[in-house]
Amino acid sequence: MAAPREPEVIRDKAAMRAWSRRRRAEGKTVAVVPTMGYLHQGHLSLISAAAAASADPVAIVITIYVNPSQFAPSEDLATYPSDFAGDLRKLASTGVVDAVFNPPDLYVRGAGRRGAASGGAISCLEEEEEEAGDGHETWVRVERLEKGMCGASRPVFFRGVATIVSKLFNIIEPDVAVFGKKDYQQWRVICRMVRDLDFAIEIIGSEIVREADGLAMSSRNVLLSREEREKALSISRSLVDARTGALKGNTDCKQIKNKIVQTLTETGGQVDYVEIVEQESLVPVEQINGPVVICVAAWFGKVRLIDNIEIDTRS
Amino acid sequence: MAAPREPEVIRDKAAMRAWSRRRRAEGKTVAVVPTMGYLHQGHLSLISAAAAASADPVAIVITIYVNPSQFAPSEDLATYPSDFAGDLRKLASTGVVDAVFNPPDLYVRGAGRRGAASGGAISCLEEEEEEAGDGHETWVRVERLEKGMCGASRPVFFRGVATIVSKLFNIIEPDVAVFGKKDYQQWRVICRMVRDLDFAIEIIGSEIVREADGLAMSSRNVLLSREEREKALSISRSLVDARTGALKGNTDCKQIKNKIVQTLTETGGQVDYVEIVEQESLVPVEQINGPVVICVAAWFGKVRLIDNIEIDTRS
Repeated sequence: MAAPREPEVIRDKAAMRAWSRRRRAEGKTVAVVPTMGYLHQGHLSLISAAAAASADPVAIVITIYVNPSQFAPSEDLATYPSDFAGDLRKLASTGVVDAVFNPPDLYVRGAGRRGAASGGAISCLEEEEEEAGDGHETWVRVERLEKGMCGASRPVFFRGVATIVSKLFNIIEPDVAVFGKKDYQQWRVICRMVRDLDFAIEIIGSEIVREADGLAMSSRNVLLSREEREKALSISRSLVDARTGALKGNTDCKQIKNKIVQTLTETGGQVDYVEIVEQESLVPVEQINGPVVICVAAWFGKVRLIDNIEIDTRS
Repeated sequence: MAAPREPEVIRDKAAMRAWSRRRRAEGKTVAVVPTMGYLHQGHLSLISAAAAASADPVAIVITIYVNPSQFAPSEDLATYPSDFAGDLRKLASTGVVDAVFNPPDLYVRGAGRRGAASGGAISCLEEEEEEAGDGHETWVRVERLEKGMCGASRPVFFRGVATIVSKLFNIIEPDVAVFGKKDYQQWRVICRMVRDLDFAIEIIGSEIVREADGLAMSSRNVLLSREEREKALSISRSLVDARTGALKGNTDCKQIKNKIVQTLTETGGQVDYVEIVEQESLVPVEQINGPVVICVAAWFGKVRLIDNIEIDTRS
């Protein structure tokens, strides 16, 4: 790992774009890693992937922005953990991060907003009938991929993700962007969006990083009690068991899903979904006979965790 | 007007982007004029606006692409007029156009498409339940502005426009894009999209160009019979009358709209809508006391025409 180096902190959109264009003009590849902060080892692995993205010199930008539009009013925007000073220390310690883009609110708020009436407290972006017609209203939707799995229980989530990623792409104009495969559906949504809208950006999907005991790293893990955290290990355990079984010939998806649901429920989890889908299209399959991924979302206490495992019985 | 000069015809996306980046690296401003071809004097005025867009040297790209996704199955994609050779001659005669981007189909078609089953005849882009999950599915929507006026009778239109313009912006990466104010709602939809998604592109709205008798120029005018064309003059006439009246103090929108509807109907037109709205937000108004625009859509025979007039009683 390189020597510690303070990244430049940029808060202004125009300054960010100018920074990026300057690096590009110098012949550098600009790589971005979009995050919502509260960085952990998983994020740092995305940064390593960004650093290795090109044989050319790479200028690395980390965005730290908790995107309000991907949270529904009922969700945990208000309690989403943050630690900007800690994040900067971690980024400096990598020695490879050149800039941190940490903007204020990136959405134009309409004059007629309820939020304004309620003291300006903004927890998310809502559609508002009474709006004056001047607020943010453009949304990017990946209409099929956004619907299943996390999209079923979080109806505005992928709309918010695709929109903020489009905005960040247009502000930063990167050559490369790195996303974690822990958020598998998100990664596939972004890949599809980039293809469909012709963004000139290479998307890198970076492997899941796990704690020593198997728990997939997540900023939300810190919200688990010790007991909940112990129980939550059933997620990764049941996924590994399912893969082992599939490679031995237990490829019936209904059986596999039932077993995972049973394991999670028995350990005290509340299952949101267990799905076995094709890796690229996320179309559900009944039998595993090609590249698939098992995706799981489950609540342990008040924390919703997601995890997944790729399986290819042909390889 | 400059001496005739053949523009370079580019059909490949990657070649287009490389062309554009080369021009930018040379210090040129890249300006794009998106069109569906069958060019007329109105388009040429957009090109003049593009040429005047910067004090720097401007590299001008005209796109000629009949975008299938903005036509509903019931609409006139199949009969939309085209004359590529004629278009090239007109563009050469301007002496200022550097490139014509004339790509083949810009949408990824899914393997499960009905179109494939029906011999590959593709008239538009439809959502298809039975799709294999690999076709185009990303849409940009400007959710409030897309709804009224033309959006009410053409439900997929602005979704298709915003999406193809996003694609063209990402392929060409222009500094400037020019749109005609004849398609007033379209222009405002694009302005809003550019603001909301942070595209680094200046949008220029270019004034309507009219025939000597007042008819707003449109590629569809050629489809009018001589008699229909004569009748269609009632559109521009009624708009000019409405403005004259408003500047004299007749600012009640209900009265103004009724009068326009009456005039168009009496001359044999079938009114789709007459709306008086704020210029930027397109929110309908009841009284004219600021910058508004009167927008009209009406059928004459089988041809749907649109037109508009801006009014500011304060100026």
